[in-house]
Amino acid sequence: MGYDFTVYKGTADGAIKQASTHRDTLKGDDVLVRVSHSGVCYTDVHYRHADMALGHEGAGVVEQIGPEVKELKKGDRVGWGYEHDCCGRCSHCLTGWETMCPERKMYGTDDLDQGSFATHAVWREAFLFKIPDNLTNEDAAPLMCGGSTVFNAMVVGGLKPTARVGIVGIGGLGHLAIQFAAKMGCQVVVFSGTNSKKDEAMKLGATEFYATKGAKKLEIGKKLNNLIVSTSAQPDWELYISVLDAGATISPLSVSDDEFKFPYMPMLAQGLSIKGSIVSARQIHRDMLEFAAFHGVKPMKMTYPMTVDGIEDCLKTLEEGKMRYRGILVAK
Amino acid sequence: MGYDFTVYKGTADGAIKQASTHRDTLKGDDVLVRVSHSGVCYTDVHYRHADMALGHEGAGVVEQIGPEVKELKKGDRVGWGYEHDCCGRCSHCLTGWETMCPERKMYGTDDLDQGSFATHAVWREAFLFKIPDNLTNEDAAPLMCGGSTVFNAMVVGGLKPTARVGIVGIGGLGHLAIQFAAKMGCQVVVFSGTNSKKDEAMKLGATEFYATKGAKKLEIGKKLNNLIVSTSAQPDWELYISVLDAGATISPLSVSDDEFKFPYMPMLAQGLSIKGSIVSARQIHRDMLEFAAFHGVKPMKMTYPMTVDGIEDCLKTLEEGKMRYRGILVAK
Repeated sequence: MGYDFTVYKGTADGAIKQASTHRDTLKGDDVLVRVSHSGVCYTDVHYRHADMALGHEGAGVVEQIGPEVKELKKGDRVGWGYEHDCCGRCSHCLTGWETMCPERKMYGTDDLDQGSFATHAVWREAFLFKIPDNLTNEDAAPLMCGGSTVFNAMVVGGLKPTARVGIVGIGGLGHLAIQFAAKMGCQVVVFSGTNSKKDEAMKLGATEFYATKGAKKLEIGKKLNNLIVSTSAQPDWELYISVLDAGATISPLSVSDDEFKFPYMPMLAQGLSIKGSIVSARQIHRDMLEFAAFHGVKPMKMTYPMTVDGIEDCLKTLEEGKMRYRGILVAK
Repeated sequence: MGYDFTVYKGTADGAIKQASTHRDTLKGDDVLVRVSHSGVCYTDVHYRHADMALGHEGAGVVEQIGPEVKELKKGDRVGWGYEHDCCGRCSHCLTGWETMCPERKMYGTDDLDQGSFATHAVWREAFLFKIPDNLTNEDAAPLMCGGSTVFNAMVVGGLKPTARVGIVGIGGLGHLAIQFAAKMGCQVVVFSGTNSKKDEAMKLGATEFYATKGAKKLEIGKKLNNLIVSTSAQPDWELYISVLDAGATISPLSVSDDEFKFPYMPMLAQGLSIKGSIVSARQIHRDMLEFAAFHGVKPMKMTYPMTVDGIEDCLKTLEEGKMRYRGILVAK
């Protein structure tokens, strides 16, 4: 009884290992999803040394549904991201911020025996997202975490269509942030180390582009209302102070073990806000998918087979900083 | 022609010096105010070594009005604070945030020949605040900066009546913050170094009180939605992380030359916001005065004569950490 499927796990030495996971007969609103694609996020690099199934940008097709599933049916295309479950009772859940639930179940800490680097996974219907008709599974997968994270930063940061927004770093997150902000009507000012990604950034919707490597001071004309920072490490915050308008909001998204060190008095005197955020809560995630489908926001991608070798190739490209801009694993 | 009046200035060695300031005949919406009281803020301690007229928590009576004054008339009781002027044309001015105006004129950088440690001052009607009938000039003076700053932090920080708010530090700002938050309906959780101010904090409206000196961990039961920090130096931010609910907003108000150093990943994972802010813009300041008058929010105070000796005594008390809780200079 139940289901056995293949997952790909991290190991102590960072090698990827194929393994098997078992799930009993579906209960409640459980859904068995056959994975068609998975985006590969830098978080997966961090976890490749952990004994856990990897991947949290899943896209696939519903194969079986549990007894309490309400809307999904076999054959529906669905995706999922970083969060798997929440309590449904706390102040955060009741106000649409279940991503802040103290009992949230997240990638990296819960359900470690399954992920999106896999043939299948079993998730609650409540945490699966229907993929809109005019968005392919391949294009939707990276939206499940990368797209969700930058879109949420825009919502949390109160980004207005009239804003002049800085995007720092063009990678899996940044290249989606440029597109979302451009489609929202914003002036999109991109900062990247060198000019190597300039042409692509402009094609994605950037209004202006600045190379920052070695820069002692940034000169960008009119100042910025928002700054979304998606570099792999924290930037030199001091460098950006001079390009922020008073009252600007900064959304830091880098994963970093360092402290947050920011010029203190300028933060007060210029009324700057720093807004910590993670992935979207579910309704924001749904809005994000609909917005992406409506506007044709999709990843620039490099594809790899969903195999041990494919995963290792993809992670290597990502670790070497050569990904343009999201790696996607494709089921055999 | 014009007006000559006494001001009290800082000097290189920190001694207070009596001096004279001249203003020509009133132009535009200029108003000549006879100073009745001035609050004394820690910023005045910082500026006692500068060659400038001190004081920015003014309260007094209108003595003369310029040709374009619209509403104020001789005998009206008025106050003023940190900001003296703005451009009236920029995006910040046009959206009610003239405190962020790039051409703002502020205490410490502009109009250095007059302040509220003085017999008189000339300010634009546009930057004077009528003092409500049921608020004395003595009680109103400390609201012009101290009250304005904490009230604004509450507005900017989106403080809700249902919030559980932490107030860190009980001084000129903190003791007003406790009262405002209590009158707004909040649960007010006060943190102070020792228990020495506990009874007064509870009388001011605190719900709970915690002494933090030497504490390695804070235990406060239900977590906080907002944290308003009005200590003279920045606190150990790490200590407060564990008492903040996910999604909490931190309003740092300390004047500090140090960097802002904050745990980075908790800020993201818990969706914390840091909101830099200064004094209220004018409409928020008006709301603050009306709210204070309506609810009887007023400073606990120690009064000193508006003389060289009185000012030096007051600054000394403040520097020694003995002020309970706002020093007020009273005109002879």
